[in-house]
Amino acid sequence: MSAMKISDGVEWAAHACALLALLPEGVALNAAALAEFHTLPQAYMAKHMQALARAGVVTSVRGARGGYRLARPPSEVTMLDIRIAIEGPGPDFHCREIRRNGPCASRKTGGAPCTIAAAFWAAETAYRTQLQTVTVADIVADLARGMDEDRLERFRAWLGKVL
Amino acid sequence: MSAMKISDGVEWAAHACALLALLPEGVALNAAALAEFHTLPQAYMAKHMQALARAGVVTSVRGARGGYRLARPPSEVTMLDIRIAIEGPGPDFHCREIRRNGPCASRKTGGAPCTIAAAFWAAETAYRTQLQTVTVADIVADLARGMDEDRLERFRAWLGKVL
Repeated sequence: MSAMKISDGVEWAAHACALLALLPEGVALNAAALAEFHTLPQAYMAKHMQALARAGVVTSVRGARGGYRLARPPSEVTMLDIRIAIEGPGPDFHCREIRRNGPCASRKTGGAPCTIAAAFWAAETAYRTQLQTVTVADIVADLARGMDEDRLERFRAWLGKVL
Repeated sequence: MSAMKISDGVEWAAHACALLALLPEGVALNAAALAEFHTLPQAYMAKHMQALARAGVVTSVRGARGGYRLARPPSEVTMLDIRIAIEGPGPDFHCREIRRNGPCASRKTGGAPCTIAAAFWAAETAYRTQLQTVTVADIVADLARGMDEDRLERFRAWLGKVL
């Protein structure tokens, strides 16, 4: 029995968005560079970037210097936006209405949602509300705090190489 | 791209616990009866009941009239207990620490958890806190409100047949 897991794609997409937020204005990064930055498989990263683009979180820029950039300011991209882009809009709890089966089933159709489903959906609302409070700007601020001169130098050197 | 889903087992297990809470004292129901009540596949229901038993939510009673009963009063079994019994203790978001990879990786080990992981874990805490507020007693109270004389009669007849 294994715990339900959020796909690794959510983590990758969030890190990719933080990286895009660090770029100088007018600059885009392609999926290959975004994958290289965290040593991730390029095909999967490409798939997740396409999902972020479809959800309107990033914009795809065409051309020789093409790639992705954030579609809006980092303070306006929440962790919930990223989660929804990668995992879909949910809900995670899907009610099969099994109370309508069997020897004691209600013969009425319609009616109030099952209390069990309502309990799980309320929990999902709490989850989403909390995820909405953290933006890519918060992630970047935290990254910046942990960035010493050595890492900043390596970041600049890497950027010079891939751009 | 499909949304992350909670397994149907959580829904089934919650309904099974509600049914066990409706039983007269000293009575147990086996997995076959629990499956029949909602027209569910018996093998899967058996698996989920075993998971509930391992988690201490239900107790297995041996013998000819054996089966399962709730291990504690319905007001002390929360939707979170059932979710954890079926899906495992989590967390759902697994941090792979990809910030330690690549050309700009931090060379330090240890340190504070990644802000991205922290954001998802805080949301999971909100989810769990909310799920903990709903108990099997709440579900049963709601079921009782929707129970007319016709359904009550069918329930008694079914119980007489399976016990």
